[in-house]
Amino acid sequence: MTRGPTVPGLVREMLAEFAGTMILILFGVGVVAQVVAGSGLGDPQSLGDHDSIAWAWGIGVTLGVYVSARISGGHINPAVTLALAVFKGFPWRKVLPFWFAQILGALVAALIVRWNYSEILQRFDPGLTKKSHIVFSTLPGNGTLPIETWGAFRDQVIGTAILLFLVLALTDLRNAPPLANLAPLIIGLVVVAIGMAFGAAAGYAINPARDLGPRIAQFLTGYGSDVWRDQYGELYFWVPIVGPLIGAVVGAGLYILLIGRNLPGEEEGTVPTEPKPEYDVP
Amino acid sequence: MTRGPTVPGLVREMLAEFAGTMILILFGVGVVAQVVAGSGLGDPQSLGDHDSIAWAWGIGVTLGVYVSARISGGHINPAVTLALAVFKGFPWRKVLPFWFAQILGALVAALIVRWNYSEILQRFDPGLTKKSHIVFSTLPGNGTLPIETWGAFRDQVIGTAILLFLVLALTDLRNAPPLANLAPLIIGLVVVAIGMAFGAAAGYAINPARDLGPRIAQFLTGYGSDVWRDQYGELYFWVPIVGPLIGAVVGAGLYILLIGRNLPGEEEGTVPTEPKPEYDVP
Amino acid sequence: MTRGPTVPGLVREMLAEFAGTMILILFGVGVVAQVVAGSGLGDPQSLGDHDSIAWAWGIGVTLGVYVSARISGGHINPAVTLALAVFKGFPWRKVLPFWFAQILGALVAALIVRWNYSEILQRFDPGLTKKSHIVFSTLPGNGTLPIETWGAFRDQVIGTAILLFLVLALTDLRNAPPLANLAPLIIGLVVVAIGMAFGAAAGYAINPARDLGPRIAQFLTGYGSDVWRDQYGELYFWVPIVGPLIGAVVGAGLYILLIGRNLPGEEEGTVPTEPKPEYDVP
Amino acid sequence: MTRGPTVPGLVREMLAEFAGTMILILFGVGVVAQVVAGSGLGDPQSLGDHDSIAWAWGIGVTLGVYVSARISGGHINPAVTLALAVFKGFPWRKVLPFWFAQILGALVAALIVRWNYSEILQRFDPGLTKKSHIVFSTLPGNGTLPIETWGAFRDQVIGTAILLFLVLALTDLRNAPPLANLAPLIIGLVVVAIGMAFGAAAGYAINPARDLGPRIAQFLTGYGSDVWRDQYGELYFWVPIVGPLIGAVVGAGLYILLIGRNLPGEEEGTVPTEPKPEYDVP
Repeated sequence: MTRGPTVPGLVREMLAEFAGTMILILFGVGVVAQVVAGSGLGDPQSLGDHDSIAWAWGIGVTLGVYVSARISGGHINPAVTLALAVFKGFPWRKVLPFWFAQILGALVAALIVRWNYSEILQRFDPGLTKKSHIVFSTLPGNGTLPIETWGAFRDQVIGTAILLFLVLALTDLRNAPPLANLAPLIIGLVVVAIGMAFGAAAGYAINPARDLGPRIAQFLTGYGSDVWRDQYGELYFWVPIVGPLIGAVVGAGLYILLIGRNLPGEEEGTVPTEPKPEYDVP
Repeated sequence: MTRGPTVPGLVREMLAEFAGTMILILFGVGVVAQVVAGSGLGDPQSLGDHDSIAWAWGIGVTLGVYVSARISGGHINPAVTLALAVFKGFPWRKVLPFWFAQILGALVAALIVRWNYSEILQRFDPGLTKKSHIVFSTLPGNGTLPIETWGAFRDQVIGTAILLFLVLALTDLRNAPPLANLAPLIIGLVVVAIGMAFGAAAGYAINPARDLGPRIAQFLTGYGSDVWRDQYGELYFWVPIVGPLIGAVVGAGLYILLIGRNLPGEEEGTVPTEPKPEYDVP
Repeated sequence: MTRGPTVPGLVREMLAEFAGTMILILFGVGVVAQVVAGSGLGDPQSLGDHDSIAWAWGIGVTLGVYVSARISGGHINPAVTLALAVFKGFPWRKVLPFWFAQILGALVAALIVRWNYSEILQRFDPGLTKKSHIVFSTLPGNGTLPIETWGAFRDQVIGTAILLFLVLALTDLRNAPPLANLAPLIIGLVVVAIGMAFGAAAGYAINPARDLGPRIAQFLTGYGSDVWRDQYGELYFWVPIVGPLIGAVVGAGLYILLIGRNLPGEEEGTVPTEPKPEYDVP
Repeated sequence: MTRGPTVPGLVREMLAEFAGTMILILFGVGVVAQVVAGSGLGDPQSLGDHDSIAWAWGIGVTLGVYVSARISGGHINPAVTLALAVFKGFPWRKVLPFWFAQILGALVAALIVRWNYSEILQRFDPGLTKKSHIVFSTLPGNGTLPIETWGAFRDQVIGTAILLFLVLALTDLRNAPPLANLAPLIIGLVVVAIGMAFGAAAGYAINPARDLGPRIAQFLTGYGSDVWRDQYGELYFWVPIVGPLIGAVVGAGLYILLIGRNLPGEEEGTVPTEPKPEYDVP
C-alpha cells in the first residue's frame, strides 16, 4: 500500500472534493429515491418522509465535509468554492478544477444510486418520467407546487445566501465557532434546517454540483433530454446552477458586512487548503 | 474590504443581534410556511410536519446564537436581554437598542420569507386570512385548540421561564455547562423540546421579537389590521410580548434561587458583551 | 442577591435534584400532553407524534442532568441513585433525601403541566378517564396493547437495566466516555432510543420518580383513586417503581461484570457529589 | 467486587465486543419490534415510524461503540473487524474470536427482545410468519419491494462500503476527525443516514452479526427453518453476511485510495486494541 503524499497537491485536493461530494450525493439522492420511489410503492411513509430527506441530506453534508476537510477544505459545493475565492483568498486557479471534481463526484454517486434503485424505480415509474425526476435533480415547486422559473431562481439565491452566511460564521476562528472539530456537525444542521424551511419552492439544491451531476446521470440512464426542462417544458437546469452561485456571493458578503468586519483580530483565510491549525488543538 | 473593528461598539452589537435574530426567523417562519402552506397544498406532511417545525426552530436558535455570540452575547430574544439586565449585570442602557435590533432582524427575515413563499401563500390562502396567519405570528391554541387569552398568557410565562432557567444553567461557568463552545447546540435542543412539549397552547413564541417582527411584516404585506387580534377578535399581539418578558424574569430568578446561588466560586456575569473567555479555550 | 454556598450541603443537593427532575418532567409530561391531548383534538399528528415523545423525553434528560450535575451529580432518577449507592459508593444516608427531592420535583412539574393543559385536557377527556391517564403516568401496553402486570414488570426491569448499563459506561472516566462535558447529551440519546425501542410494553418509565410524582399529581387534580390501577383494574403503581429499582441494580452490575472490572486503572466513584474534575478540563 | 484487569486480554476484548453488539441489537431489533408489531396493533405510527427505526439503530451504534471502544476498539460488526485486519493491522488471530463474540451478543440481545415483545408478537403474528420476520432479520426489499437476491446482495456491498469508507475517515487521526471523543456520535449518524437512504433494497444489515445473531434467535424461538429463506423461498441468510464482508473491504480500500494515502504523516493503526491515545486528550 502506498504511504505518504505522493500525488500532486491539486490532484489530492480534487480527489478529496470528488470523494466528499460523492458521499454527500450518495446519501442525498439515496434518501429521495427511498422516500419517493420506495415509499411510493408501499404504504406512504413506510420507508421515510420529508423529515428523513432533510436529515439525510444534512448528515450527508456533515460526512462529506469530514471526509475532505483536511485535504481540500471540505467545500463539496461549487458555490462555496466561488464565495471563498471572492472573499477569502481561495486561489482562483483552483476554482475550475474543484468544480470539475465536485460535479464528477456527484455524477458518480447518482449513478450508484441509480443502479442500486433500478428495480424499484422501474416498478415505480417504468417510463422514467417527471414522476421520478426529483429523485435525482430539482424542479420548481418540487414538480407540484405553483412555482415557476423566477420563483425557483429567487429561492435558490436566498437559500444559498443563508448557507454561505452560516458557513462563514461557523468557520471563522475570530468569531465563536464550534470547537473540538465539530463545525461539520453544525454545518450539517444548517442544511437540515434549510431543507425544512426552504425546501418547498425549488427543492433546495443550493449547490450546483448537487443538481448538475445527478441531472447528467439521469440524462445518461434513460430519462432523455427532458431532464434539462421543468414540468412546464421550460429550460431549467441553469437555475440551480446560477442561483446558488449568485446567492453564495451575496450571503458571504452579508456575513462580512454584518459580522466579519466587526470582529477583533486579523482576518485570516478561514478555509485554507493546507492542514488547518484548528484541527491540531482539541 | 474594510477590516478590523471600525464600527462603534453598540452598533456592532446591534448588527450582531440583527443578524442573529434574522437567521432565527428565516428558519422559524420559513419552516411554518413550508409545513402549513406548502404541505397544505399537496399531500399532508409531504413537505414536513410538526416535528420539522420543532427541529427547524431549534436549529435556528443554535445558528442565530453562533452568529452573534462573540460580538453581542447572542441574546436574539428581548426576554433574554431583559433577564440578563435584571440578574446578570447586562447594561440597562443597551436593552432598548438590543430590542430594536432584534425586532428589526425578525421583521426583515419575515419579509424575506413572505416574498419567497408569495406564490404558495397566494394559492393556499388567497384572502390572507387566519388560515395562514400562524405562518408568521402566534395565536392562542394555534388558532384551533380551545385556548383563550388567559391560557395563552399563562403558557407564555411558563414556556419562557423554562427557557431562561435553562439558558442560565447552560451558560454558567460555575455550573457544568457544555464545553468546546457547544452550548448553542444544547440551547437549540431546549427550543426543540419546548416546541414539542409547550407548543400547543400558544405556539411557543417565548420571544417577543419572534412574534412582533413577523406580525409587523404580516401587517405590512396584506394581512391588514386583523393581525393584532386573535381568532376570537380579541387584541392579542401583547400576549407573546408581555408573557415572555415576565416569564424570563421568573425563570432566571428560579435558576438563581435553586442552583446559581448554591454554586461554589465567585459569580461572574455569564454573558459578557466583550469576547468571552470560554471561547478562547478548546 | 445572596452569593456563595450558604445552604447546607445536602439541601443544596436536594434542591438540584428537585430542579433537575422538574425540568425532566416538564418536558416529558408536557410532550405527552401535547401529542395525546393536543393532537387528539385536531388532525392526528398535527402537534407531534411518537417520535416527538421520544425526542422530548431524551432532551429533557439531557437538560435535567446539565442543571443538576455539578451540585448533586445529576441523578434525577431514584433508580440511578440506588445503583450508585450499591456499586459506586454513593452515601446510603443520602438515598432517601434524594428520592424525596426527585419525586417532589416530578410532582411539581406535573402540576404545572396539568395547569397549563387544563383547557385542552378538559376538552379532550372531560371525565378525566383512562383516555388521558397516560399523559401523566404509565399503563401496561400504554393502555391499549395486550400487556398485563408481568409483561410490564419484565419490561421495566429490562429497560432500566439498559439505562444503567449505559449511564455507567458513559460516565466511567476509565472507559472512553464523551468529553467536553457532553455525556449528558449522549445520555439523553440513550433515553430517546429506549423510548423508540422499549416504549411499547409499559411506556418506559424507567424512573420511579417520573411515574410516581405525576401519578400523585393526577390523583390530586381530579383523576381519583383509579390512578393507582391499570386498565384491567389491577393495582399497578408499584410496577414502574419496583421494576426500575431492580433493573438498575441488574444493569449496573452487568456493566461492572462485562466492562468495568476489566478496565485499567483504579476504579473511582464516577459520580462524586463534589465538583467533578472532568468538568474542569475542556 | 473484583477490581483491575484480571481477565486475559482476548477474553476482555471478546466481552467488550459481546456487550457492545448486545447494546446495538437491543435497540435495533427492539425498535423494529415496536414499530412493526407495536404500531401494527394500534394506529399506524402510534409507536413510531421508519424515522424511529433509523434513529434508534444509529443511536444503538453510537452507544455500542462507546461501551466497547476502550477495551476492544468498538468494532461491534464482523465487517469492520475484517476491514481493519485487511488494511489496518488488526491481528488476524483475533478475527474469528471477535466474530464469535459479536454474533453471540446479537443473539442474546435478540432473545431478550423476543422475550420482552412475546405477547405483542403473539397478537400481531400468531403463526410467526414472514409478517413479523423483519423484526429480527432482513429480507430483500424488506419483504415487500420488488428486489431479489442479486439486488439485495448489490445493496449490501454498497451500503457496507459507504459505512467503512466513513468509519475510516472519521477515526483517522491524520484526517480531520471529530475530537472530544465524539467520533462514536458521528458514526451513529452514518448509520442513521444509511437507514434513510439505503434501507429500501435489503433492510441495511451492513453487519453480518446484526443479521445472523437475530436470525438464529428467530430460528430457536418458533419461526422454524423458514428463517433462512426469503419471501420467494430462496436461501437468503448468506446475503447479509457475504455482501457486507465484501463491501467493507471495498469501502475501506476506496478510502485509502482516495483520501488515506494522500494524508501527511505516518499512517498509524487507527483502531488499536489498547487504550487509545486520543481518548486521553480532551
